[in-house]
Amino acid sequence: MIPRRHFLKQGIALLGAGSLTAASSKGVEALEPPETPPWMKSPGAGMSEYGTPSKHEVNVKRTAIASRPGTTGSGVSRTPLEALDGMITPSGLHFERHHSGVPDIEPDKHRLLIHGMVKRPLVFSVEALMRYPRVSRIHFLECSGNSGILYNPAPPNLTAGQTHGLVSCSEWTGVPLRSLLEEAGVDPGGQWVLAEGADAAAMSRSIPMAKAMDDALLALFQNGERLRPENGYPVRLFLPGYEGNMSVKWLRRLKVVATPVMTKDETSRYTDLQADGKALMFTFPMEVKSLITRPSHGLTLKGPGLYEISGVAWSGNGAISKVEVSADGGQTWTMAPLATPVLDRAITPFRLPWKWNGSPAVLKSRATDTTGAVQPERDAFIAEHGNNAIFHYHAIQAWYVQATGEVKHVYA
Amino acid sequence: MIPRRHFLKQGIALLGAGSLTAASSKGVEALEPPETPPWMKSPGAGMSEYGTPSKHEVNVKRTAIASRPGTTGSGVSRTPLEALDGMITPSGLHFERHHSGVPDIEPDKHRLLIHGMVKRPLVFSVEALMRYPRVSRIHFLECSGNSGILYNPAPPNLTAGQTHGLVSCSEWTGVPLRSLLEEAGVDPGGQWVLAEGADAAAMSRSIPMAKAMDDALLALFQNGERLRPENGYPVRLFLPGYEGNMSVKWLRRLKVVATPVMTKDETSRYTDLQADGKALMFTFPMEVKSLITRPSHGLTLKGPGLYEISGVAWSGNGAISKVEVSADGGQTWTMAPLATPVLDRAITPFRLPWKWNGSPAVLKSRATDTTGAVQPERDAFIAEHGNNAIFHYHAIQAWYVQATGEVKHVYA
Repeated sequence: MIPRRHFLKQGIALLGAGSLTAASSKGVEALEPPETPPWMKSPGAGMSEYGTPSKHEVNVKRTAIASRPGTTGSGVSRTPLEALDGMITPSGLHFERHHSGVPDIEPDKHRLLIHGMVKRPLVFSVEALMRYPRVSRIHFLECSGNSGILYNPAPPNLTAGQTHGLVSCSEWTGVPLRSLLEEAGVDPGGQWVLAEGADAAAMSRSIPMAKAMDDALLALFQNGERLRPENGYPVRLFLPGYEGNMSVKWLRRLKVVATPVMTKDETSRYTDLQADGKALMFTFPMEVKSLITRPSHGLTLKGPGLYEISGVAWSGNGAISKVEVSADGGQTWTMAPLATPVLDRAITPFRLPWKWNGSPAVLKSRATDTTGAVQPERDAFIAEHGNNAIFHYHAIQAWYVQATGEVKHVYA
Repeated sequence: MIPRRHFLKQGIALLGAGSLTAASSKGVEALEPPETPPWMKSPGAGMSEYGTPSKHEVNVKRTAIASRPGTTGSGVSRTPLEALDGMITPSGLHFERHHSGVPDIEPDKHRLLIHGMVKRPLVFSVEALMRYPRVSRIHFLECSGNSGILYNPAPPNLTAGQTHGLVSCSEWTGVPLRSLLEEAGVDPGGQWVLAEGADAAAMSRSIPMAKAMDDALLALFQNGERLRPENGYPVRLFLPGYEGNMSVKWLRRLKVVATPVMTKDETSRYTDLQADGKALMFTFPMEVKSLITRPSHGLTLKGPGLYEISGVAWSGNGAISKVEVSADGGQTWTMAPLATPVLDRAITPFRLPWKWNGSPAVLKSRATDTTGAVQPERDAFIAEHGNNAIFHYHAIQAWYVQATGEVKHVYA
């Protein structure tokens, strides 16, 4: 159980001297300042044109799964959530999901066609798109298959990133799709938009016109710079809150149509087979979700003492309104302070000090969003949806802290 | 002059078909969709462990100035502001300012000492620091020497990034310094803190205790991942709003003292020589500032028509409350919408459509912050401060759009 008094003032004042192993002057082994370390004895490296992470952080990388058998470039790589902290995911570690690899697009030759039920079909070069007024927004992107392995009856022997790392959060800057559709002039019967990518899979999805005219973006920049190739360079669709594959990368075509096109990616794929054998289609928004990233599976606590429990929460239907944390498997819950600013459909970090007494403990987080939706317990979620589905898993995640300090994935 | 009607609804609805060269289906030269481009005819590249920008964006890089004569690794590199868009600067393009290069620190052997006028001197390993509760905040960092060349009597033949690119903005995550100082127990007379870096220059500054106890961070993460080496890996001080060099990188020592130590970096350097021959010392916060990044020096408008004027604003004393834009050299001003969220001491993009009629025009932006401070015109700023200083230049920036569409730096 988490004693409530530890959450006053985020507990900062409670970290007294000596409470952290190796924090006091007694606990460190060598090279005490002010002894001069070797790297102060000669000038260091000069400036560089484009920086990279420290060589000491090379293990912080996307967990790539090889291409599916018989395919090239089809698969996923995941964000190492347990090694990161904050709202923004560095673009180099943004998750990937490709259906036929990353196309090598010549930006000067790329075109975006808007056609179908419009008054004026239009073709845009990237240069033309770059002249339109842009907006910036910080939003998460989550693959609908994120955490899909947790439909399995047994908990996996995998880290937080390996199970939940198909979610990332960036500042996206681009042209509101609405402005281009208004220029093309949408016919009254045009209620859907087919979006098609310029990859070899011609990844395609049908988008409701209401979403296209609401907050859809043609994203050109990610975290300040032009899109990365694996995130749709030179231009991608971005649909805030919707399942990731609908934010079609390498966007080449938008066709205004009356009804959904029923592409392979919304019929044979990206539907949700339920326990009764029926499948849900067009389940667009990603539901309210959270997980603790530290401590988590594969990490080890070094003995009893004060720790920070930290994690991330997000919802495709709004902002996060609260995250509660339990250290007793869900019997009691304590409100975790949210990092600010808390933004609509963005990753929201939460953090809470925790005094671990050395006994086994089960850690959970439970997020609520501004629509009032509450992240469900896994038992209730599986009872409702069954084990057949692959997508839209968003149940509460439990981590089992053993007496040894080792942390394991557990269904609890 | 900017017609006011262009700013209704941010002008998006006014971008009618044909208003943009090459935007309509008539204006593009080849490879019209739905013709299949070559990159759709075979699978693309697979997943990668750590992504990098497109090969087509290799010219978007920091502008590095070689080391100063007789030094190694001392100098600056600048963020290419005119090529970026949004609040966040990608970490690979964050500006650099090194006094003796980037030290090659072994994180396991790095130590941070807190000593001086404290009850308990403490030494922290990085591992120990990583156990303390953390906070995340999005803030700009600006070198006090940013735009210093504009003290010169003649306007430079340089781009927006080359003149103003010693400012960047990141999400910084780290331990509030206050929590460590409270653990050490500061003596009542300890009113300042000497901060020392582990570079060969032992870069050192005196920090007011009030700032150290207010919002100072020991930053461990930048834009989600661990600090980059050139930004202080494994730990840097971060002082929101203060001149960049005070956010001492590679932090190894904090000594609590009664009065400023008068280090070389606050006496022979980083003071502001005024017109009367006296120098200002300890000018900590960076003042309210903005500039238009597009159009800007070195870019060319391709004929009359609609353009977006965009730029960035920031203040070390609060949030940006408004940015006004002029297209007639400052005779008339129009409010520019600010990108949201508008955060305290963070870069705030502003954007405004502009109909250029093909005549010469002088573009300016003028920022106001939440303290009411207004960015000054250059003439007034120089009249007050003279031409002797190097640091804290923050006057209004003017760009001259010639009839040819070429854009030049101008004092106007």
